[in-house]
Amino acid sequence: MTTNKNEANDYCKNNEEVFLKNFKEFLSIPSISTDSLHQAEIMLAAKWLKNHLTTIGMENVRIIETKRNPIVYGEYLKTGKSKPTILIYGHYDVQPPDPIDEWESDPFQPIENNGKLFARGASDMKGQIMISLAAIESIMQTGDFPVNLKFLFEGEEEIGSPSMRTFLEENKNVLKSDFVLNLDAGMVAADIPTIVYGLRGLAYFEIEIYGPRHDLHSGLFGGIVYNPAQALCEILSKMKDEHGVIQLPGFYDSVLELTNEERQKINALPVTDQDYLKETGSPSLWGEDGYSTLERLGARPTLEINGMTSGYTGEGPKTIIPSKAIAKVSTRLVPNQTPEQVHQQLINFFEIHAPPHVHWQVKLITKDLPCLIDLHFEPTQKYSNALQEVWKKEPVFKREGGSIPIVSDIKTILGIDTVLSGFSLPSDRIHSPNEHIQLEVWKKGIQAIISFFFNF
Amino acid sequence: MTTNKNEANDYCKNNEEVFLKNFKEFLSIPSISTDSLHQAEIMLAAKWLKNHLTTIGMENVRIIETKRNPIVYGEYLKTGKSKPTILIYGHYDVQPPDPIDEWESDPFQPIENNGKLFARGASDMKGQIMISLAAIESIMQTGDFPVNLKFLFEGEEEIGSPSMRTFLEENKNVLKSDFVLNLDAGMVAADIPTIVYGLRGLAYFEIEIYGPRHDLHSGLFGGIVYNPAQALCEILSKMKDEHGVIQLPGFYDSVLELTNEERQKINALPVTDQDYLKETGSPSLWGEDGYSTLERLGARPTLEINGMTSGYTGEGPKTIIPSKAIAKVSTRLVPNQTPEQVHQQLINFFEIHAPPHVHWQVKLITKDLPCLIDLHFEPTQKYSNALQEVWKKEPVFKREGGSIPIVSDIKTILGIDTVLSGFSLPSDRIHSPNEHIQLEVWKKGIQAIISFFFNF
Repeated sequence: MTTNKNEANDYCKNNEEVFLKNFKEFLSIPSISTDSLHQAEIMLAAKWLKNHLTTIGMENVRIIETKRNPIVYGEYLKTGKSKPTILIYGHYDVQPPDPIDEWESDPFQPIENNGKLFARGASDMKGQIMISLAAIESIMQTGDFPVNLKFLFEGEEEIGSPSMRTFLEENKNVLKSDFVLNLDAGMVAADIPTIVYGLRGLAYFEIEIYGPRHDLHSGLFGGIVYNPAQALCEILSKMKDEHGVIQLPGFYDSVLELTNEERQKINALPVTDQDYLKETGSPSLWGEDGYSTLERLGARPTLEINGMTSGYTGEGPKTIIPSKAIAKVSTRLVPNQTPEQVHQQLINFFEIHAPPHVHWQVKLITKDLPCLIDLHFEPTQKYSNALQEVWKKEPVFKREGGSIPIVSDIKTILGIDTVLSGFSLPSDRIHSPNEHIQLEVWKKGIQAIISFFFNF
Repeated sequence: MTTNKNEANDYCKNNEEVFLKNFKEFLSIPSISTDSLHQAEIMLAAKWLKNHLTTIGMENVRIIETKRNPIVYGEYLKTGKSKPTILIYGHYDVQPPDPIDEWESDPFQPIENNGKLFARGASDMKGQIMISLAAIESIMQTGDFPVNLKFLFEGEEEIGSPSMRTFLEENKNVLKSDFVLNLDAGMVAADIPTIVYGLRGLAYFEIEIYGPRHDLHSGLFGGIVYNPAQALCEILSKMKDEHGVIQLPGFYDSVLELTNEERQKINALPVTDQDYLKETGSPSLWGEDGYSTLERLGARPTLEINGMTSGYTGEGPKTIIPSKAIAKVSTRLVPNQTPEQVHQQLINFFEIHAPPHVHWQVKLITKDLPCLIDLHFEPTQKYSNALQEVWKKEPVFKREGGSIPIVSDIKTILGIDTVLSGFSLPSDRIHSPNEHIQLEVWKKGIQAIISFFFNF
């Protein structure tokens, strides 16, 4: 038996109803990871996936316990060593449906309406998992499989994947692959196939400034002590200059500059400043001089105050000088910055700028490495060709402003790159009431993944 | 019958036990104004005062209703027009006793222990009222009264005197006097008689800065909008320079500079920087260059952040760009600054320094005028002599850092100055559990007030 893409595509088209039935079955399991009350449904979803992988011909399929939610592993290695092994990553857990009152249908009774399938997880990301599995089934049923496969489906993504790093460390050999296919990113719009080739990292800090031992009466003591809220404002205000350039010493030293090719691709994205003004409701856009909005969004590091508090914030006046001031500050990192470097830079910055009249501390509480996949990485190119074949237009390449820690963790621990894409849309309402997926896009997704496998 | 100070003093000494019995009776009424549950006791205290004033020979004594707690008025005008009329101000309401568990005795069952009398209101300020009334009784019982008297005892001081301004406006003629005696201030220490000749005013502002319409994901939108918390920090950080000089345009224009005599008197106060370091627990003292700690405390204007909040301040990381940032900021004013002037200066300052990428507003929510009584004001000099006679040392003259709105309200509405002093000590725990008064100081206080009246 030889492989035949057309036969696989035909099988796919003829079996759409079955695929959809399976998809709905998967969606009807409330595998909510943020609430330990749903532990039984988490296990149910893991078992459902295990069965389905077995049904479509995958081998060595098993559920692996972690400290919290199990990982579903499987593989298909019969194609032989001359062909690459692709590690397919996904997560079978979903966000809670709250606020439940705002749903127009039961979040765990999938309903089709107007070309959309409504259910929690439809887009993020049970729908993406089912795209891969439908593509795999279509090929398995019609000929030889063109590549080797491994599967890594976790149940903890929506709670920050607490078991994942340990699991990767302990299973390096089992997971050994040539690259990862991760469909947990999305498309810019339904008619714009999208590949994410970079992610920003994150370093999140808690800053505390201490002044007097306790809050002081501002009349009896005003004028003789340094106010820690004032000290905090002074220090934070110096972190950026008027051109939006971050002033931590050495902050940009390890930043990889954009290539001309990247700038061209990024600025070709069909999103305008007007779109962002509308979406944010900000009085105006603002940021680092010398870079376009789209460049600043994904390809330049940022530093933002995420929160701060000091003294009295209730109703009416209270005349105190606060004893301390607290801020949460984070940087979005780009290659080749590291959270530890920036932590040290922030400490150095405080040593220079904090007045001697207060005490302070700067703690790094969360960190994710940035990552960047070469635009010319062969699997990315083959994936791009597959998208182009189905959508009949060249995909856009995007650097994402947020972090997807699994991508950098896999790079760091397993040493392999990821093809990061997906078929969810900004309008799919992921994490919100009435989450859905566009069924036309979903079906095109299956065809694209079939093509992708045949490109090797 | 002629007046005789020695006889009055003898009467006082012989009747200490009776005075103390009356004082304890007054203290046993829980006239708490901050809690409407104690309305009956407020009325009880007002009636007690009315009876007591009548008993000691005052005339036209009456309880005057206000929208909330009644005012007790009385007068003694038989001395004749050649002698001044003194308006004696006091408040018969007290703070709540909370936290009640920390009291070592019942706050409304006065107990003597180790030379101190423990009860809520003992020092603030039923004890001060009883000093005047014991002095008056001692003179009334032994001869002609040397001055004319009016009494203004309110029951709303601890809740900000909401009825007082209206009452003053509506009773200008009734209250017409030469000056006020207000014993609601205190002494620096038991052996240091103290006169307060200046009070700072207050202008309290709420500042709001608005950026994006709602909180934004700091990954998806970081780098393209102006963070309102950053804007707030930038603006607030510019309000003072590194010398502690406030940068609002025109802020110092109407500030009355200290005279050499004042600087001498203020710096003679027996309080050191070391004392303030200990009391505040601050790493170091800090303030406006060119002025000593004591000068900065009472005689120079301040500007302090009383509180601020923005974005996420709970546990752990939350990666948002806040949609708004709020601060409470207040200035302590000195003559001849006004709250309205400073409000306008703050608005001007924001117009200069707020970035165009955010919206803002600055609201004045509380205001009190500063005040200053000439060191050579005759009644102040006579009061100083009376203190010196009893304590055998020269009193200290102090400008207080806080505000006592009644003093500036009386100056503004009735047009008269106040002799501001009192016999409470910093260690008396006013507003705290185990409030008490030092009985030796209390008794010396009565003698000083007797002498004061005879000095006219």
